[in-house]
Amino acid sequence: MTKFTESKCDVLIVGAGPAGLMAARMLAQFVAYKPDLKVRIIDKRSTKVYNGQADGLQCRTIESFKNLGIADRILSEANDMCTINLYNPVDGVLKRTDRIPDTLPGISRYHQVVLHQGRIERHVIDSIDKVSGGRIKVERPIIPESLEIDESKVDDPDAYPITVKLRYMGEEESTPRQFGHGTENGLFRSNLQSQEEEDAHYQLPEGCEAGQIETVHAKYVIGCDGGHSWVRRTLGIDMVGEQTDYIWGVLDAVPASNFPDIRGRCAIHSENDGSIMIIPREEGLVRFYIQMADRAEQGCRVDRSKFTPETIINQAKRIFKPYYFDITELDWFTAYHIGQRVAPTFSRHERAFIAGDACHTHSPKAGQGMNTSMMDTYNLGWKLGLVLTGRANRNLLKTYESERQPFAQALIDFDHKFSRLFSGRPAKDVADEMGVNMDEFKNVFFKGNKFASGTAINYDPSVIVSKGPKSLGDAKLAANIEIGTRLQSAQVCRHSEGLPMDIQDLLVTNGAFRILLFAGDVTNAAQMARVHKFAEYLDSEGSVVSRYTPADRKRDFAIEVLTVHANSRDDVEMHDFPKALYPKFDYNKVYADCESWHKGHGHAHDSYGISTADGALIVVRPDGYVAMVASIDDTAALDEYFGAFLRQPTPNLGASTEVEWTKVETK
Amino acid sequence: MTKFTESKCDVLIVGAGPAGLMAARMLAQFVAYKPDLKVRIIDKRSTKVYNGQADGLQCRTIESFKNLGIADRILSEANDMCTINLYNPVDGVLKRTDRIPDTLPGISRYHQVVLHQGRIERHVIDSIDKVSGGRIKVERPIIPESLEIDESKVDDPDAYPITVKLRYMGEEESTPRQFGHGTENGLFRSNLQSQEEEDAHYQLPEGCEAGQIETVHAKYVIGCDGGHSWVRRTLGIDMVGEQTDYIWGVLDAVPASNFPDIRGRCAIHSENDGSIMIIPREEGLVRFYIQMADRAEQGCRVDRSKFTPETIINQAKRIFKPYYFDITELDWFTAYHIGQRVAPTFSRHERAFIAGDACHTHSPKAGQGMNTSMMDTYNLGWKLGLVLTGRANRNLLKTYESERQPFAQALIDFDHKFSRLFSGRPAKDVADEMGVNMDEFKNVFFKGNKFASGTAINYDPSVIVSKGPKSLGDAKLAANIEIGTRLQSAQVCRHSEGLPMDIQDLLVTNGAFRILLFAGDVTNAAQMARVHKFAEYLDSEGSVVSRYTPADRKRDFAIEVLTVHANSRDDVEMHDFPKALYPKFDYNKVYADCESWHKGHGHAHDSYGISTADGALIVVRPDGYVAMVASIDDTAALDEYFGAFLRQPTPNLGASTEVEWTKVETK
Repeated sequence: MTKFTESKCDVLIVGAGPAGLMAARMLAQFVAYKPDLKVRIIDKRSTKVYNGQADGLQCRTIESFKNLGIADRILSEANDMCTINLYNPVDGVLKRTDRIPDTLPGISRYHQVVLHQGRIERHVIDSIDKVSGGRIKVERPIIPESLEIDESKVDDPDAYPITVKLRYMGEEESTPRQFGHGTENGLFRSNLQSQEEEDAHYQLPEGCEAGQIETVHAKYVIGCDGGHSWVRRTLGIDMVGEQTDYIWGVLDAVPASNFPDIRGRCAIHSENDGSIMIIPREEGLVRFYIQMADRAEQGCRVDRSKFTPETIINQAKRIFKPYYFDITELDWFTAYHIGQRVAPTFSRHERAFIAGDACHTHSPKAGQGMNTSMMDTYNLGWKLGLVLTGRANRNLLKTYESERQPFAQALIDFDHKFSRLFSGRPAKDVADEMGVNMDEFKNVFFKGNKFASGTAINYDPSVIVSKGPKSLGDAKLAANIEIGTRLQSAQVCRHSEGLPMDIQDLLVTNGAFRILLFAGDVTNAAQMARVHKFAEYLDSEGSVVSRYTPADRKRDFAIEVLTVHANSRDDVEMHDFPKALYPKFDYNKVYADCESWHKGHGHAHDSYGISTADGALIVVRPDGYVAMVASIDDTAALDEYFGAFLRQPTPNLGASTEVEWTKVETK
Repeated sequence: MTKFTESKCDVLIVGAGPAGLMAARMLAQFVAYKPDLKVRIIDKRSTKVYNGQADGLQCRTIESFKNLGIADRILSEANDMCTINLYNPVDGVLKRTDRIPDTLPGISRYHQVVLHQGRIERHVIDSIDKVSGGRIKVERPIIPESLEIDESKVDDPDAYPITVKLRYMGEEESTPRQFGHGTENGLFRSNLQSQEEEDAHYQLPEGCEAGQIETVHAKYVIGCDGGHSWVRRTLGIDMVGEQTDYIWGVLDAVPASNFPDIRGRCAIHSENDGSIMIIPREEGLVRFYIQMADRAEQGCRVDRSKFTPETIINQAKRIFKPYYFDITELDWFTAYHIGQRVAPTFSRHERAFIAGDACHTHSPKAGQGMNTSMMDTYNLGWKLGLVLTGRANRNLLKTYESERQPFAQALIDFDHKFSRLFSGRPAKDVADEMGVNMDEFKNVFFKGNKFASGTAINYDPSVIVSKGPKSLGDAKLAANIEIGTRLQSAQVCRHSEGLPMDIQDLLVTNGAFRILLFAGDVTNAAQMARVHKFAEYLDSEGSVVSRYTPADRKRDFAIEVLTVHANSRDDVEMHDFPKALYPKFDYNKVYADCESWHKGHGHAHDSYGISTADGALIVVRPDGYVAMVASIDDTAALDEYFGAFLRQPTPNLGASTEVEWTKVETK
């Protein structure tokens, strides 16, 4: 007898890989605010992945993790890459021809690092649990079997236009069949993975039984179900792109080798046997991407049984010559066939979305897959959260596709070029037109580093990115800031005690927008008068802070104002600033762009191109991207910017969590 | 009916405050090595402290925590102090007269921070549990009732000359009566303290009952039982020193004030009403030390009932004038009477030791108490561990008192001077001889910062500190290193991939000594030949590494050799070095003192005053202190140094945990 049940939820996330978990993490903060919001995340596998898989973390991903409160733990476990070593044939012998930095100096506070995907997912899951107060749990093994959208209801914000039928799976059918996993003796077990191993058993959610069918009525669904995405196919969205005929083997192993840079990131082109990329990992492991001699035939499936650890290791031995290569421990292996494909659309009616591998697939060697997947839902999550909690209009949701699809396309184009240069045979001389010019390869690799870091993303003008000819405000007031990119960090000192801090650390991912008031030189009385006038605006009933802050919330809940002045802490006191800039004596709101004892001067105004005579307002989105630059006097631009997509919330008259502050005056 | 039991243990630690917990943590690593080692720690209180108490962490303490693997978590919770603000009367009005850095730039990688003692203890307890594999647990509430030493047995390393009778306590008698705690409504509860609150209930160890008497036969006992130490009194050791007549009140509170530096560390001298020190803490709390108008009469007990939150706050209001001062939340308060006293001896027969407040008490305002207490047992712990595991002779234990007692005396002298300057009335003019000269105060405060940081500790010559006229080796070869001080950090790059790292991070606290081989410029063939000769010595049967490494342990277990060369990674490969310097292809043994991509050049040779033409050997103790400097050729100095206190271990023929490495040769 099949058990049938029926339920409602606000968001159903299909797939608990990096994209799905980040979606859940971003929505968790809104669940904490509005506990009746129902967010579910399901996965068809009975257990988490615990070896192999993607593991590079790019700068922008780490910056985002920092603002989610999970970067420090991840970095303490990860391996910092550092240098890329280029090896090429020189007079027929493989030699190191160059070294370049793995992360270009200056593009971020962080460097690219590597850590096993299972550990990264563990930290995101722990954070979901903590932030949502245990309200969002991954439910597994569950598979969706049908998905329908009632198009007549898609524009009604309170409707549940999505209907999904879910089936609870049995143990046999849900066991992950990971190619290569479990086939070797002597598997290398990281001592970091005990929690993963504890989780690795079949268990349906409480009260559910195998075979049960649940009909879910949802406001939104997000397909994060990987390269063969069932959600994408069900929505009728096709992937566009092509496949190469190159096949690569992958080993996660402890190497035994006299190759000089066996613990360094390397790009190795042998003369005639193909290429290798080395990615040194945590805990003594090294990942090897090894180009196989076999080629795929267009339109045919590759016979995977030909690729065993032995054939891959033997191929590596050939490429590494004259160096000796073998392994002492094998953790995981696989083989794949490079393809670059992207979905032309990421949504149906802004009710059903796809994210991550479900909408873009490419080669793993630039370390982009997991990063782009998580950044997709880092983008979507806050938008959906604001709409679901009645704080933004549905027009905000259109910007998910308009921001992420062009980036995915650019990534595919980059990977197309990069992987062909990597898989190609090195040119023997300038006349060898079929070969790859190694100078060109180095150049693409070097420039590609900035692209790959995620810090170069520059979103087009939209309702939330005010730039270009018709923009609000005045971009010139912060000449070095590119509106539409993430705010690069700069050091400022917290006024209350002079502690040097990174501005990026103030941009906690909690759904709030920020107005950074760069106040400039406030010892100039006229400039201080402008600051006071801006504070009067904030205190007024019509200000964006007054209008968009729910009645029961602190003043920094929806739009947080942070002040950075350009004076020494000896020349101006925090109490010289109007109280609207530090509501209830909050010592975390006012900063000085000045000399510190231990870390020098941050020169934040200078680095952003802001004149200390004029100052500027910088509006930063909840995901850390710069939305608008405006004059301190231009409060009309704030009104217009936020008015285009925010909704005035229904006042929630629940108990305030704040303590009233005694008014303090100098006697 | 009283239950009587009898037992044996290697070490009995009395008191589970900072000193006792650090003793247990240091011994935990030896328990991990030798699981039949029995280390016990008992405390008479039924629960841990969870508010108030000491909370400053000095630079050297944090450096030590880093090597114990607990610094990062503690720092993520702590509040970084930063600036000290000096306030004095100027023409009768309280004004800020100066700002100085709280931690002198350049003395350490870390700055002084503050965190609640309960959190620090929590991290140490977690680490004890992890490192000892759950074999060391705090047992409470248990009180010692008698202690005897059989002097005829003290020189026999295998004997149990200590007999202690323990009594298991009832709930009523073991509840901590902390002055001030629990007396106020509206207690400020840190969300970090849930674990402490969970622990806060009465529970005897399993199988024990209240009133039970246990007779313990121990090899060693450590009294970490505080200022009124029962162990010290039982051993007949008197404290020497005196008390002032100043009384100070203490508040941990969330302030409401328009005082400009209420969230900064301040030293405030009012004209006639006494002084205040402000210590900004984590989670919005601020600690105030407030000098009371009442004085103590010599020889009489102070009537504590006179000191309530109201009297202390009212006194603060007077001192803060013309600024307004009040509090919105009170977490804890107390009052104390300054005294400076120190024990002349820290041990009886090197079998019974005292540590922490049990042997030195002073005023809390320089933030020294908890730090000095933990550093006492950080010093004792590795020595006792080496002796207990048969790896060192008992003569090593004499250096505990010879190193820590003079430091405690110096601390008492510093505190005596500092606290009188702090408690004194500011001089009205140069003729006011009864007043304190504020320039002198600032000067002592500034200089005292280096002393207070713990980085200035310089141990005298001993069997483990080879310096002075009769020293081994040649101190001149590292001209900027002061033998007997902790090794200051310098940046080097791990050769295998070029990652910049701090040398101090390599000095993991695991009971191992280190020989840092500063190899200098090894592109010079003669210098490389010296390095190869040194490696031959290491490989020989008579080398200190071969002699003192137990048979079943890795080559780096007792004495780890780390190589730092002064060449670019492009000019020399790791495999150019002899294999003895990276046993079993361990990529964590060879470092380059060279330029890095993101953090510049560390100039480690230069900063230590080591010539790249000559190089040097630096011997570092398990606690990070420099023991000896010698020439690369002077292996005789190594033999003599280690021979003076290490014992050749009994080979342990248990199973090796290592994987054999395939020998690799270039073909």
